[in-house]
Amino acid sequence: MMEPYKLYYWPTIQGRGEFVRLALEEAGVPYIDVARGKGGMKEMNAVIAGGRDERAAFAPPVLRAGELLVGQTANILLFLGARHKLAPRSEAGRLWCNQLQLTIADVVGEAHDTHHPISVNQYYEEQAREAKARSRDFVTERIPKYLDYFASVLQANPGRGGWMVGSRISYVDLSLFQLLDGLRYAFPKAMAGYQGRWPGLERLAAKVAARPRIAAYLGSKRRLSNNEDDVFRHYPELEQGVRVKPRG
Amino acid sequence: MMEPYKLYYWPTIQGRGEFVRLALEEAGVPYIDVARGKGGMKEMNAVIAGGRDERAAFAPPVLRAGELLVGQTANILLFLGARHKLAPRSEAGRLWCNQLQLTIADVVGEAHDTHHPISVNQYYEEQAREAKARSRDFVTERIPKYLDYFASVLQANPGRGGWMVGSRISYVDLSLFQLLDGLRYAFPKAMAGYQGRWPGLERLAAKVAARPRIAAYLGSKRRLSNNEDDVFRHYPELEQGVRVKPRG
Repeated sequence: MMEPYKLYYWPTIQGRGEFVRLALEEAGVPYIDVARGKGGMKEMNAVIAGGRDERAAFAPPVLRAGELLVGQTANILLFLGARHKLAPRSEAGRLWCNQLQLTIADVVGEAHDTHHPISVNQYYEEQAREAKARSRDFVTERIPKYLDYFASVLQANPGRGGWMVGSRISYVDLSLFQLLDGLRYAFPKAMAGYQGRWPGLERLAAKVAARPRIAAYLGSKRRLSNNEDDVFRHYPELEQGVRVKPRG
Repeated sequence: MMEPYKLYYWPTIQGRGEFVRLALEEAGVPYIDVARGKGGMKEMNAVIAGGRDERAAFAPPVLRAGELLVGQTANILLFLGARHKLAPRSEAGRLWCNQLQLTIADVVGEAHDTHHPISVNQYYEEQAREAKARSRDFVTERIPKYLDYFASVLQANPGRGGWMVGSRISYVDLSLFQLLDGLRYAFPKAMAGYQGRWPGLERLAAKVAARPRIAAYLGSKRRLSNNEDDVFRHYPELEQGVRVKPRG
């Protein structure tokens, strides 16, 4: 029997690690969320920049699979997708999943920068004014540009079942659920304003949340709550007075 | 004989497409830089968001290989690396290359945001003050954090030859050359201030530039000049008065 995967990620936030957690949960494979255990942070520090591991990653999340150490969220999902049927078998299908995941990673990065537009080395409060300007652009321009795109990909998918790629669930569906969940937490007014603009994506997110293993995970203590140390943060002032277009 | 690859990317900048161009040039395979030809922009628009292709990408670069359409820079390199021996054959080696490329993509994104910290929908001049603050952080904190990391990866590589992965050149080496070249163009004073801090990376970049096919490419009209519409832009005011630490 295979030894459990080891996930190295910050112990108090969903963050980028959550995309990996969702894939591991849907796959139903055993894993240890290392940094949430005793001495776990020390163990994590060995596999990130400055750590002693020869293939230390620049930053978490990092996944250990036996001998293999894999970093960068989309790269970990590329690996898990092939191993646990969370991506198509064909090269074309795997590349398409990876391409969509990298596009999701781009939105996530922009969502992070809404509260840290100037420096990750300073507190939000020190860049709150710039954060407000960047958030306005993100909420009114970037969210619809990205979600219109994902909605068009979903619509163009010839596969049955309402998934993003082919006719089976893939890690891209899990990641889109997490993206929508994060955006709704960070910008509830704006996302409410967009209500109904992306019905296919809303149905997809609901289907993901209803997957038995995902539903069990979301109801468990393993699922961390949203908070303002995370990538998706709710600062009401950032969407205050921002008007969105419910239709494209 | 295989039909030439088609690269879809903005015709007047190096940008993210340059990482793909360098891989195609080093591989010595025929390709058409579509948007630089007559009617090329129209052809490119069909394969990006809003375009008619069923697997249109969110943004360029996009590579067409026969039936296959591949988007997202790191994803295109993952594909080309496997096809043209610009990455190891082993799964572990391919994942490691992809991980390093994604980390390079992260620095490139941050380099772009130094001149567009608030919105890609506004001109640099409209966010020049915020750009100065973000550039200071990028130049003094982020550049050394990333380049110290890449230097440590290079040093830890047991392979011979001074390459990033194993004992042969990979697309990661080509991309690091491009990253250093772009940083030197955008922040010449700062990079001069760091002179000697990353000798291994400097040697690697010089070796890449001396590769016969790369040298020929860099001396050709196919290599576009740096300019202020690009990802790496030189605005002297952004590094004005910024002091860097030549040693870590």
